[in-house]
Amino acid sequence: MPLDARAFIRHKRDGGVHEPEVLRDFILACARREVPDYQASAWLMAAFLRGLDAGETDALTQAFLHSGRVFDWSRLGVAADKHSTGGVGDKISLVLAPLVAACGVPVPMVSGRGLGHTGGTLDKLESIPGFRTQMEPAAMAAQMQRLGVIMVGQGPDLAPADGHFYSLRDVTATVEFEPFIVSSIVSKKIAEGARAIAYDVKCGNGAFMKTREAARSLAMRLVATSRAMGAAASASVTDMSWPIGHAVGNALEVVESWRVLRGDDVPGTGALALGLAAEMVLLAGAASTRDAALATAVKTLESGLAAEKFLALVHAQGGDSRSLEHGGAFRPAPAVVELRAPRAGHLAGCDCFAVGEAIVAMGGGRRAKEDAVDPRVGLVLQRDRGAKLAAGEVFASLHLAAPDAAMAARVVACFTVVDEPPAPLPADLVLERV
Amino acid sequence: MPLDARAFIRHKRDGGVHEPEVLRDFILACARREVPDYQASAWLMAAFLRGLDAGETDALTQAFLHSGRVFDWSRLGVAADKHSTGGVGDKISLVLAPLVAACGVPVPMVSGRGLGHTGGTLDKLESIPGFRTQMEPAAMAAQMQRLGVIMVGQGPDLAPADGHFYSLRDVTATVEFEPFIVSSIVSKKIAEGARAIAYDVKCGNGAFMKTREAARSLAMRLVATSRAMGAAASASVTDMSWPIGHAVGNALEVVESWRVLRGDDVPGTGALALGLAAEMVLLAGAASTRDAALATAVKTLESGLAAEKFLALVHAQGGDSRSLEHGGAFRPAPAVVELRAPRAGHLAGCDCFAVGEAIVAMGGGRRAKEDAVDPRVGLVLQRDRGAKLAAGEVFASLHLAAPDAAMAARVVACFTVVDEPPAPLPADLVLERV
Repeated sequence: MPLDARAFIRHKRDGGVHEPEVLRDFILACARREVPDYQASAWLMAAFLRGLDAGETDALTQAFLHSGRVFDWSRLGVAADKHSTGGVGDKISLVLAPLVAACGVPVPMVSGRGLGHTGGTLDKLESIPGFRTQMEPAAMAAQMQRLGVIMVGQGPDLAPADGHFYSLRDVTATVEFEPFIVSSIVSKKIAEGARAIAYDVKCGNGAFMKTREAARSLAMRLVATSRAMGAAASASVTDMSWPIGHAVGNALEVVESWRVLRGDDVPGTGALALGLAAEMVLLAGAASTRDAALATAVKTLESGLAAEKFLALVHAQGGDSRSLEHGGAFRPAPAVVELRAPRAGHLAGCDCFAVGEAIVAMGGGRRAKEDAVDPRVGLVLQRDRGAKLAAGEVFASLHLAAPDAAMAARVVACFTVVDEPPAPLPADLVLERV
Repeated sequence: MPLDARAFIRHKRDGGVHEPEVLRDFILACARREVPDYQASAWLMAAFLRGLDAGETDALTQAFLHSGRVFDWSRLGVAADKHSTGGVGDKISLVLAPLVAACGVPVPMVSGRGLGHTGGTLDKLESIPGFRTQMEPAAMAAQMQRLGVIMVGQGPDLAPADGHFYSLRDVTATVEFEPFIVSSIVSKKIAEGARAIAYDVKCGNGAFMKTREAARSLAMRLVATSRAMGAAASASVTDMSWPIGHAVGNALEVVESWRVLRGDDVPGTGALALGLAAEMVLLAGAASTRDAALATAVKTLESGLAAEKFLALVHAQGGDSRSLEHGGAFRPAPAVVELRAPRAGHLAGCDCFAVGEAIVAMGGGRRAKEDAVDPRVGLVLQRDRGAKLAAGEVFASLHLAAPDAAMAARVVACFTVVDEPPAPLPADLVLERV
């Protein structure tokens, strides 16, 4: 029976539930442009307002997945990946991919660029001179075979229907809808070949999910849909009310990641990366308990094998790691301004969204897809959350393209200093596991 | 401030109410294709599911109205028109336009074609050989000046934004939504220059509005929006559970209209036309009470002036009325099949929707806009609702392109014959006035 797009839209408009095959046919017809965009967007709004249930979300994910290429790394083992919903100072992927690969688990990591107030792994990697994030499938396969890890951007043949729908969602105010978010994320992870997926759902003022309830709901649905696609999955809801680690900004985050890989203890970054590595190792079946998986990750990090894997990855993808390796100035910013405590007290709160927006304003992120990014700029915290400061004491430095006192004041205003020390966050930032 | 289509759509998605100027700007930008169809259709669905209030409906109507030409007949008086929501056997416009014009009220009538199970005035007029329903504005003005009446189709410059949105509604399952229906109808009536509008909202199994509540609600909103546009307006909710008059089918309805104009008493058709004529005369200010307006209409019909006006109109628009005037065969159908009562009893019920669909199947209506219509086919009732029939007695005849016993059986099955006579309908079919 030919697809009746009008009847399909009407069914959702009236609160009906789509049959999986019918939903899949509609999505694929849209992707082939047999159904025009104006019908697709009417359906998007009807679905947004009427809802999609778990079965429909799974069918949508299947349709996106099968609209393009699906990688298969099973000859190398169970491939693992992590997806984060995005935060401020979230450089975890840079530590995690080489670390998990060094644990013997294949990591075919496909990442995105920063948009809005959050950073993106591709932008961070590209602050390494020469680093290539676009690779042909054959080169990806060769590198996976040789190193067990790739870190690339999404190719045009990976879940292209998702790309088509994402563009439409963006212009029709239908972005912030859990079933669309879930199907978009999961379809790409499954298409890249990951069969063991650790989700890091950020929660707090620097995250897209502001409440624990919203984060938990998304986490549960990501896991359920991933399992429906045949992958092992777990999700951690993690704190995003304070920047992760010390550095925010592309090159600065690469430096911090390298330090963690070399064994430095950076609060937040190290523990979160180890925790997520343990999840991936466990989900991939490379350890039988979480404790054993965590022990493997810790041992691999301490052994220097993860750092070695990172350098091998950088070299394989054309990057020049010399200034990083030799501890020299890595993409230094022309101006560094010290940020001082406006009063005595404990460093307690941070408006992470405002910090992310300030860094975008400094040139470190993008407002529109075609914007260029200045890899040098950013923020480095010199004191941790809870630290006791004297009035006027330096607690951070701002790295800028040129001195900018107003920007410094804007970033200082993102932090609160109070009399009593704040309740501590969990060391690994995990608020709950799903 | 430039229009932010995304923010506009989001506002309605989240249940907000649009400012009139902002809504108007959005609609006009869509009509100019500055806002792409996929954004317009997402908004259509959001509005459909979230609702539009009276102020938004008025703003939508204003936007449609001012997207094109607005006729002004004020030099000729207060122009009047009628709009019917569509029914089976509804040839009222053919009687009404010349009748009201003969009462001295200008009637710049713009009509549509049949679609679905209902007939359209243009199709009926075009069954008159040579009759032209497309006229240039200058020719319309000249004929209005000379005869005080035109009966035409909608020109491309009349509320073009409504045309654009109607096409989108049609393919996005957003047709059946009262504010869209109201703004579409009212904007065209105001644009054609009518300032006194009588609405005939049909209710029953042959109407788009099946319930009295839906019909009353639409009637009230049509009147309120018309008044907001500066027109005098009233609405009648009329019965559509039995075909209007005796004939259904294009040429057959022209013949019936002519008979009514010549003074024959056809139950339903005559009284409904006179009642609506009285509304138009009263709204246009050509009489001070409804009784006086009705008396004027009755007198004008009886005087023969209305019939004379009809002939003048037909001749002015190129139609050949000879076979009609001389009582000869007017577009006779090749086959006429008698319909007989399946049992003895009273003719009581009619599934008008099924009758309309049968006539479409006979070639008398269209499934798609581009379908041709056979003007000859249709149904003629020889007995009225409530008539007592013997088993096998002829109660109607079916006019067909070729003999078709199955079609005759199908149409007979649309009628019910029962032991007790049904409660009578009001003579003028008016269930209530708004």
